Amino acid sequence: MEKEVKIGILGLGVVGTGVAKILLEQGNLLTERTGVQFRLQIAVDLDWERERGLNFEGVITTTDFNELVTDPEIDIIVETIGGVEPAFSLVMRALAAGKHVVTANKALIAIKGKELLEQAQEYGVELLFEASVGGGIPIIKSLKEGLVGNKILSIYGIVNGTSNYILTRMHQEELGFAEALQEAQAKGFAEADPTLDVGGGDAAHKLTILASLASGGFVDFNAIPAEGIAELTTLDINFAKSFGYVIKLLAICRFNGKKIDLRVHPTLVPKEHLLAAVNNELNAIFVTGNYVGDTMFYGPGAGQLPTASAIISDIADLSRDFPRRKKGLQQPINPEKNVALFSLDEISNRYYLRLFTLDQPGILSKISGVFGKYGISISSMVQLETHGEKNYVPIVLLTHEAPEKAMFKALSEIKEFDFVRPDILRLRLFK
Amino acid sequence: MEKEVKIGILGLGVVGTGVAKILLEQGNLLTERTGVQFRLQIAVDLDWERERGLNFEGVITTTDFNELVTDPEIDIIVETIGGVEPAFSLVMRALAAGKHVVTANKALIAIKGKELLEQAQEYGVELLFEASVGGGIPIIKSLKEGLVGNKILSIYGIVNGTSNYILTRMHQEELGFAEALQEAQAKGFAEADPTLDVGGGDAAHKLTILASLASGGFVDFNAIPAEGIAELTTLDINFAKSFGYVIKLLAICRFNGKKIDLRVHPTLVPKEHLLAAVNNELNAIFVTGNYVGDTMFYGPGAGQLPTASAIISDIADLSRDFPRRKKGLQQPINPEKNVALFSLDEISNRYYLRLFTLDQPGILSKISGVFGKYGISISSMVQLETHGEKNYVPIVLLTHEAPEKAMFKALSEIKEFDFVRPDILRLRLFK
Repeated sequence: MEKEVKIGILGLGVVGTGVAKILLEQGNLLTERTGVQFRLQIAVDLDWERERGLNFEGVITTTDFNELVTDPEIDIIVETIGGVEPAFSLVMRALAAGKHVVTANKALIAIKGKELLEQAQEYGVELLFEASVGGGIPIIKSLKEGLVGNKILSIYGIVNGTSNYILTRMHQEELGFAEALQEAQAKGFAEADPTLDVGGGDAAHKLTILASLASGGFVDFNAIPAEGIAELTTLDINFAKSFGYVIKLLAICRFNGKKIDLRVHPTLVPKEHLLAAVNNELNAIFVTGNYVGDTMFYGPGAGQLPTASAIISDIADLSRDFPRRKKGLQQPINPEKNVALFSLDEISNRYYLRLFTLDQPGILSKISGVFGKYGISISSMVQLETHGEKNYVPIVLLTHEAPEKAMFKALSEIKEFDFVRPDILRLRLFK
Repeated sequence: MEKEVKIGILGLGVVGTGVAKILLEQGNLLTERTGVQFRLQIAVDLDWERERGLNFEGVITTTDFNELVTDPEIDIIVETIGGVEPAFSLVMRALAAGKHVVTANKALIAIKGKELLEQAQEYGVELLFEASVGGGIPIIKSLKEGLVGNKILSIYGIVNGTSNYILTRMHQEELGFAEALQEAQAKGFAEADPTLDVGGGDAAHKLTILASLASGGFVDFNAIPAEGIAELTTLDINFAKSFGYVIKLLAICRFNGKKIDLRVHPTLVPKEHLLAAVNNELNAIFVTGNYVGDTMFYGPGAGQLPTASAIISDIADLSRDFPRRKKGLQQPINPEKNVALFSLDEISNRYYLRLFTLDQPGILSKISGVFGKYGISISSMVQLETHGEKNYVPIVLLTHEAPEKAMFKALSEIKEFDFVRPDILRLRLFK
């Protein structure tokens, strides 16, 4: 007779319903693979009118979270509410009640991960969050366990499916940003308010989690510089293409000595790089370890069943040795360990610059004079002729590696020229 | 004070030395991440003259395997001898002595996996083999744990680095097979005798392991049809390219009802597919699950340190809950479960055919007549003009989906024509 593990789900929205579906429909397969019976004991949600297409017979369906926390029989609580509150308070109580917790909530882990893992440690329980990054891709398990012997050297992640879908459509169909965004919304790949996705905030949440796991200490989400993709135009996509690059929104983590370089921004990726072939709403995380070398993990970064698949994997991990020891659990991130970040000022990059200037003689020499003054050397340049009535022409430059600081000063000075339009775009190249 | 886990390595060749290196040099990091002290206690090899660049102070270095098996202190034995014997007998004894075993040995697991897992079960120990497929890529952990909630629908693996390197060079530099193989040998990506690699046998070993994990029952290695890449010419590579395909040696596992379609052969992969972008000696395994959808795991499929990285991950997994329970261990593959395979006869494919014929009138109609007779419909065809003195011209055809059986009969008949050269090449398209 198999052990039985009792599960409560907190929040039966899209993802929570997916978890319930797999537990209810795939019980035999899960038991065959793990030797454990999974029983969905309680499901908590405020709305039980909605049709979820599942048979909840034998499951306690309630609107009262307290039933979940106070029921001594529940072993594992799945948090699928999303957002920081009330999820944070509820998970803290669940951990204090001795329940293991599994969550898909990236904002929660990125912002409150330290408090949560301290709480888990104090009460001798575990908090797992495979689904918080890369949806169904087992990237957290791979970092924590699969690559456990490696010092991680760098991580480059396409971790926001919305942005990747929009960029793919801009590249492949020459859609403008607004049009591609609309299409993403129509297909359910973008929220009505897409700010967190296209602005880089969501990718920064995920980068916080990946960098914390890779470094073994908590990274401060608020210290991560994040730029989004809303300024990109078809012109930029096409220029990048002509230089041999594809533009991707990357979450970047590079270790250098004791410090980490962390940022989220649109990046020109060489078209031969495997990340350049990751299209549509798909995600991929490219991880380099000191022993393993280059690896990449690819798959759906969101969606009901991929995300539920990752949650089920956490549930199975927690269930393998039930009842688990309560002492001496090794946390994947040490709350006491400080991780120092490079500020952007300390970093050098290659840049893509696109500016519009009046079509007058002598302009190029003035602009290149400013770059020269700050020691920034230009590797390619394209200036197009004007056609039609507009008298601004685009100039696009690629630079050799230069310090962020120098680039910032050069651009501030260039912006002062009365022949330069203020909408200068500065992107970075993959390195 | 941390727990100490004592390790013995059996076979200090390239990979075994890599494992020793990580254990000796990365102890602190491993302890920080796992809460365990790893101690390399014994290393067994016949040759202790060779310089390995490591300091074995404090390690018992011996030529006698018995020391490893009889030492009651050893917790985990790493088998890095390779090949079926004597590895098989030694691992059986190690398991019987109550040691957990970690191996990188794909031939051993593919051919003797069933006996070994039964032995492990009987003695209440574990046998892990992450490094046996995909080198440093955590593909086995991902299948067993990361995707545990999924029915696996299909696996397409580029799992032989030698072949992938050769095919990449043929594609990118238009090298012939022999030239590309020579280059691979010079770079250390191919053995002096490359038969197992370029003939598909190594990929079939790995496919056996992946399919057994995905199906939960042991697959018979000897029942897998395997074709290699030695017949491919630059002509084929270029024709494939002109049709929009890249040729890759794929290990294929497709579930259909209760049976599995397993085979290894060169395959025309559409150039937009992510697998087509996996180049050089790198490996990738493209896995589709019923909930997660499409995922891919990419990285180095061989090499000292990538392989050692995978072995270390198994060692860390075994060490997490030391001392481990001896009873009720769940094996990832059930030795009692039978898995039925489709025979090739039951399968349909799209085909690429390349044949040389004399340049005579009426030939095309005779050839297409044979295909018509067996219900095989042609989707594209190219016939080149002769130039120079040779009087054989290549004809290349792509077909729509057709049964293997019909294709076999049609080709047997076409081979009988006196205007057809006997070296007909038949490849399959990705589906």
